Amino acid sequence: MRICVYPGSFDPITCGHMDIIERIVDMFDRVVIGVLQNREKQPLFSLDERLGYIRRCTPGYENVEVEAFDGLLVDFARAKNALYIVRGLRAVSDFEFEFQMASMNKKLYPEAETVFLMTNTKYSFLSSSMVREVGRWGGCLRGLVPGEILPDLMKRLKNSL
Amino acid sequence: MRICVYPGSFDPITCGHMDIIERIVDMFDRVVIGVLQNREKQPLFSLDERLGYIRRCTPGYENVEVEAFDGLLVDFARAKNALYIVRGLRAVSDFEFEFQMASMNKKLYPEAETVFLMTNTKYSFLSSSMVREVGRWGGCLRGLVPGEILPDLMKRLKNSL
Amino acid sequence: MRICVYPGSFDPITCGHMDIIERIVDMFDRVVIGVLQNREKQPLFSLDERLGYIRRCTPGYENVEVEAFDGLLVDFARAKNALYIVRGLRAVSDFEFEFQMASMNKKLYPEAETVFLMTNTKYSFLSSSMVREVGRWGGCLRGLVPGEILPDLMKRLKNSL
Amino acid sequence: MRICVYPGSFDPITCGHMDIIERIVDMFDRVVIGVLQNREKQPLFSLDERLGYIRRCTPGYENVEVEAFDGLLVDFARAKNALYIVRGLRAVSDFEFEFQMASMNKKLYPEAETVFLMTNTKYSFLSSSMVREVGRWGGCLRGLVPGEILPDLMKRLKNSL
Amino acid sequence: MRICVYPGSFDPITCGHMDIIERIVDMFDRVVIGVLQNREKQPLFSLDERLGYIRRCTPGYENVEVEAFDGLLVDFARAKNALYIVRGLRAVSDFEFEFQMASMNKKLYPEAETVFLMTNTKYSFLSSSMVREVGRWGGCLRGLVPGEILPDLMKRLKNSL
Amino acid sequence: MRICVYPGSFDPITCGHMDIIERIVDMFDRVVIGVLQNREKQPLFSLDERLGYIRRCTPGYENVEVEAFDGLLVDFARAKNALYIVRGLRAVSDFEFEFQMASMNKKLYPEAETVFLMTNTKYSFLSSSMVREVGRWGGCLRGLVPGEILPDLMKRLKNSL
Repeated sequence: MRICVYPGSFDPITCGHMDIIERIVDMFDRVVIGVLQNREKQPLFSLDERLGYIRRCTPGYENVEVEAFDGLLVDFARAKNALYIVRGLRAVSDFEFEFQMASMNKKLYPEAETVFLMTNTKYSFLSSSMVREVGRWGGCLRGLVPGEILPDLMKRLKNSL
Repeated sequence: MRICVYPGSFDPITCGHMDIIERIVDMFDRVVIGVLQNREKQPLFSLDERLGYIRRCTPGYENVEVEAFDGLLVDFARAKNALYIVRGLRAVSDFEFEFQMASMNKKLYPEAETVFLMTNTKYSFLSSSMVREVGRWGGCLRGLVPGEILPDLMKRLKNSL
Repeated sequence: MRICVYPGSFDPITCGHMDIIERIVDMFDRVVIGVLQNREKQPLFSLDERLGYIRRCTPGYENVEVEAFDGLLVDFARAKNALYIVRGLRAVSDFEFEFQMASMNKKLYPEAETVFLMTNTKYSFLSSSMVREVGRWGGCLRGLVPGEILPDLMKRLKNSL
Repeated sequence: MRICVYPGSFDPITCGHMDIIERIVDMFDRVVIGVLQNREKQPLFSLDERLGYIRRCTPGYENVEVEAFDGLLVDFARAKNALYIVRGLRAVSDFEFEFQMASMNKKLYPEAETVFLMTNTKYSFLSSSMVREVGRWGGCLRGLVPGEILPDLMKRLKNSL
Repeated sequence: MRICVYPGSFDPITCGHMDIIERIVDMFDRVVIGVLQNREKQPLFSLDERLGYIRRCTPGYENVEVEAFDGLLVDFARAKNALYIVRGLRAVSDFEFEFQMASMNKKLYPEAETVFLMTNTKYSFLSSSMVREVGRWGGCLRGLVPGEILPDLMKRLKNSL
Repeated sequence: MRICVYPGSFDPITCGHMDIIERIVDMFDRVVIGVLQNREKQPLFSLDERLGYIRRCTPGYENVEVEAFDGLLVDFARAKNALYIVRGLRAVSDFEFEFQMASMNKKLYPEAETVFLMTNTKYSFLSSSMVREVGRWGGCLRGLVPGEILPDLMKRLKNSL
């Protein structure tokens, strides 16, 4: 059984994340979405909120599991018996950082493989921080975040200012 | 009438910014320099200081207006009836970030166009943060910031340590 | 009167080129599309074909002129009294090359300004060489080249193998 | 059954290619190595030589198939019922080109997914053209090309000058 | 006598830093390793700890001096009579930042030259921040930091959480 | 004695090359400018012309030697007892290619070190191919090529069309 981990902060989940998830559910037998707790960099949304948004967007996938993790990604992947780590790529600056991460993870967990998928070009400008910024000022998030959580997220972000 | 917004933090204005301004005053009928208040990232100079420095450097331009804004750039541009957003490009890392911004702004305000000008190569190393760092330690800022504000800025920065 | 030159090989014109053209017809009073003859690098389409395709795609624009040129771009721009050179940007590698070109052109023709527009992300993968490659092998070019020339271009490319 | 195509010119196969192949034989149920005929860009090695070298390096893999193809990659992938296209990434310039290719292929064959693996950093400098250049001048290729073909390849390249 | 400064935060020193140091001790007559105090960005290790770790890793080099500095790098280099500033390059994002720094330093101290060495590819993924992150969570740092300080550093980092 | 090789095609030598040469004559005890014969890629200027232009621009430097070479750069460096290979860096695309070259050369000649200097920003747009293109069409080359060869080069290039 091929198991992958798809890690991130998901602060919050965007259409770009969903685009990756929709493609890996067929590619792997089991997909573990790993939500980083990130004690140091303070996220806008609490861990429970972030887990909740993801779960509301992925109800139909039987082989998808959503779980929080802390510490090193490789330790989480090992604990889940995952030999594949999935990352979405958007741009060159992404690529540089991802290259360093993947190389370090290869050193710490040589059996695992980092697999990169190119984010759909229509989401190439999209990031969680852009969503937070636009939502905070009352901008429309349609097409940027999944419809399931759109109204709640817009209300929640508008009050975050 | 072709109106453009040239947005930034201008913390403080540099010769690189002036280089862009001098070129767009002929290119557009009206130029609105938009100074971002930036509540979250604490600027070194107060909003009034930043506005004041810009105004002292642009007295001769009749079609230039200097104004503060808060919130989303697209909302500011709309309020000013500007169909053009001007950005200076220096380097690859600039480009990536600008690409994301321009794409997001296109989505939020489809009628507006982001126009990029290449910063003169002699200012390709110049940024407001470099100016702050050099000035703070008493380094000479001649050729890095406009002459009109050079003495005041150097005195002000030296005391900022 | 603000005149711009939009130069290229246009071998052949694509939807990415049209996307730029549609945006600059409002931005400038006069748009001169300059088609480089390119004696050395042998284009697939003859100069007449390339001019013809562009003209068939731009019949409605009164301020657009399509013209061939040879030699240095700055000499062509000067001859057309154009103070603006328009270039579309797609990716980092574009940017590097464009930076060199714009700097050299600034040195040779200091009064002129190179203006960059970001190609719509949905065309960020599109280039004339990709169109030639896909068309040559009978791939569908719908959405890649303007509808006005789609059938002719597909027939012409299929026979170019 | 998850089938992937791993396409390239393989002119000739290098340790960097082998590094990718060794990792995808477990990741997919069937791996089709597609050798591009490349009628226009004249390869140094004939198609038969290139196929032969790959076959001599991959005798132990039961789920690997080596096959030549011509025309569009998406047509080859479709013919092999492959829903995955594998590409190795080494550097930023790679990334830009691969991004364009993957986006175009997504448009031409939406069901298929391009999957990127990062080449081991110890092969990040390695390319077929470097191998040809070094071998041509009698440089040692140990560690650059698989041991199975090392002596033959070095002899063959030395005579290619 | 050719004197160089090799500046950095060294928070902490890594095998990548050592790789550069080992190469410049022959290239220059005197090597001054300058440890930036960095009042603003709070380092994990104290200045004394960082100096101590470096000294323990470089006992055999007679022409190497380890010293702390504050303020502008060019002022430190001038004070040490150094006409060369050495920087290691790993990746594109490095390069952009280094380009800006080198250009600014050239302006402030025209007699000095910034010399770039490419970090060994096997350390291309390595940074002090990665070392801190891995060590904090109890990951093994063998091959990432010099053996002389490995046990102490791992113990120290594990307690930093 | 520290000996370096500064290799290139020098087709023709530009002010950017001179900028690097002027800086390395103090940095090394002996500088060997290696002019690549380049049998495959046909240069515009003959080997003798390229050697001649360089010699006319470097008469005052006692520790500079100009010599042609063919084959692998590492073999040339070894024959000259050079432990240093000097390369100028201009832009990101340069960097990628240089990274590959330096890594390969490190593998073939481990004792040698590639040393990178950043080209002065005012020459960041300058390349031999740009010089050829501008000169061919009669553009002014002042400030692009050294004054010693300016008139001859302009005459020679104008006749190359």
